[in-house]
Amino acid sequence: MALALSLGRRGQGRCWPNPAVGCVIVKDGVIVGRGWTQPGGRPHAEPVALAQAGDAARGATAYVSLEPCSHYGKTPPCALALIEAGVARVVAAIEDSDPRVSGQGFEMMRAAGIEVTTGVMAEEAARDLAGFFLKTEQGRPFVTLKLASSFDGRIATGSGQSKWITGPDARRVVHAMRARHDAVMVGAGTARADDPSLTVRDLGVEYQPVRVVVSRHLDLPLMSQLARTAKEVPLWLCHGQGADSERIRAWDGIGAKLLSCNLHGVQLDPTDILTQLGAAGLTSVFCEGGSALAATLLAHDLVDELVGFTAGVTIGAEGLPALGALGVGRLDEAPRFQLVDSRPVGPDILHRWRRAQ
Amino acid sequence: MALALSLGRRGQGRCWPNPAVGCVIVKDGVIVGRGWTQPGGRPHAEPVALAQAGDAARGATAYVSLEPCSHYGKTPPCALALIEAGVARVVAAIEDSDPRVSGQGFEMMRAAGIEVTTGVMAEEAARDLAGFFLKTEQGRPFVTLKLASSFDGRIATGSGQSKWITGPDARRVVHAMRARHDAVMVGAGTARADDPSLTVRDLGVEYQPVRVVVSRHLDLPLMSQLARTAKEVPLWLCHGQGADSERIRAWDGIGAKLLSCNLHGVQLDPTDILTQLGAAGLTSVFCEGGSALAATLLAHDLVDELVGFTAGVTIGAEGLPALGALGVGRLDEAPRFQLVDSRPVGPDILHRWRRAQ
Repeated sequence: MALALSLGRRGQGRCWPNPAVGCVIVKDGVIVGRGWTQPGGRPHAEPVALAQAGDAARGATAYVSLEPCSHYGKTPPCALALIEAGVARVVAAIEDSDPRVSGQGFEMMRAAGIEVTTGVMAEEAARDLAGFFLKTEQGRPFVTLKLASSFDGRIATGSGQSKWITGPDARRVVHAMRARHDAVMVGAGTARADDPSLTVRDLGVEYQPVRVVVSRHLDLPLMSQLARTAKEVPLWLCHGQGADSERIRAWDGIGAKLLSCNLHGVQLDPTDILTQLGAAGLTSVFCEGGSALAATLLAHDLVDELVGFTAGVTIGAEGLPALGALGVGRLDEAPRFQLVDSRPVGPDILHRWRRAQ
Repeated sequence: MALALSLGRRGQGRCWPNPAVGCVIVKDGVIVGRGWTQPGGRPHAEPVALAQAGDAARGATAYVSLEPCSHYGKTPPCALALIEAGVARVVAAIEDSDPRVSGQGFEMMRAAGIEVTTGVMAEEAARDLAGFFLKTEQGRPFVTLKLASSFDGRIATGSGQSKWITGPDARRVVHAMRARHDAVMVGAGTARADDPSLTVRDLGVEYQPVRVVVSRHLDLPLMSQLARTAKEVPLWLCHGQGADSERIRAWDGIGAKLLSCNLHGVQLDPTDILTQLGAAGLTSVFCEGGSALAATLLAHDLVDELVGFTAGVTIGAEGLPALGALGVGRLDEAPRFQLVDSRPVGPDILHRWRRAQ
């Protein structure tokens, strides 16, 4: 099952809107098939593994990180494929919460005489598939918020200089994190200040996550890295209903996808932004700031994982804070997270935190 | 030698103005004596170990973490004690930089026929004795700056609430760190806002580091934990020359030691503060903020070690920053530190950094 989970993670960031599932088929103690959800979400993990196993699947055990699907979507149900291949036993990590499946995959296989075990390494699977479950259950993707700051929590000097606070190793880890998410998201201020391309570079990765920019007024420069690359790498712009129609046309013309979102006060409503991203298929979003967007997501309790990179440099109070105003009065109202991991990355430290339960 | 260093560390925080030295005497592969600098700085490590060894010292090897002293101070020279005890060989970690010793201890022993080896684990010894060397060479103590903050570098909410950002485990580690320093230091703002006692608690430690408060105008409440305990635990106040004489008398009357320091602009000159603390015998100071004092020390390049405790809580831009203004324009002017250690402490993370070489 650990192998199935690990294979499943290979699909992360590239098989949305489908879950990144892994499957291992074992016959007489030998692995005869391995599969994971393919780019774009199809084929699913099970048919890939079954094809590899061929006749050896008959009487074998299939380990899958998620309940095999039971409905006819764009592909026939995987539960049926396992039945037809003559698999004797299926071990699954976790039940699918999609109402079209939700236990019916298991039922279909049991009815066909397959021995079904579930709940093996369920916690790990729930973590790996958290984005898929969130999208299914709450209609929004999993949100990882990354902030790379100085020892004292600043992301730039008072004059706006931010290159580089953290070192090349940290930036490399950030690129790997981007690649494991369906999308990378920043606010308009960051897009204007840094002119980022938000792509995954120097890792030998052939696909790119969607780039999402949140800009109420759509006042983003058309002469920018994002605009220049909009035809090659998906660029989605979340804007307010009052955004200038000329700008909407211009961005549409260069290949961006436009998502018109509701307001919450004077800002775009972060819940509506994420709901629209979920409806468009995204299961996970990697938000890289800036301080205003980061604060809005935190204030609305929409951050599932917090990733910090801290450098051994002190910038002082004139520097730009990593987080904008949160409206926290008492300390017990402040958003709390639980430590998952902390380790050195080059000269900096990486620390990851999950939403406190 | 590792044992001698470890024994030496037992004296840290309680044997100033003397160095915290350790000594192990080995005869025929058996440890016959162990010693470390005693509280108040006397007796030194060597006579303690020699007394324990007794006649067994004859022909033995003595491992010492610092060159044995060669001058008659308040005690006779340790080099002489080793000679008189008939020790055959002395292995030292590092030479003393005190001009009254500086190689003369080694010379005295060699002249008496003792085989002397030096430089064994010199780097570790230099780290352990960094405060003593700084005081000897630059006249100021080693400065550790500790800041416990939220994920985004805040030490209190906008309304001033700071209890508790980090958890009890982190606070316990802080008390242990206090105990290993000669003094704990805070700025006047922190003394007023938190009414701290700045003592070491709940660790079974019988001695207390000196408490130092930096307050230009000496406008500190006499009804406070610090004032109440000034007779039992040393309280030193660094104030400006213009501080109110009534206040000076009042604090003197309750047992505080008063240090009149020079100004640097509108603030007390941090270099003069540390020079006076060094002249008064301190070899190491543990500064716990607040943000203004911390920033002043950093801006004057007077921080040797930076200790961060980071909690998984986000406070936002209204919160009180860990560091005040530093006057950093370009990023390459910002003070840089090298990572020494990072690890989880309860629900928080601890990270330690040393001044970049």
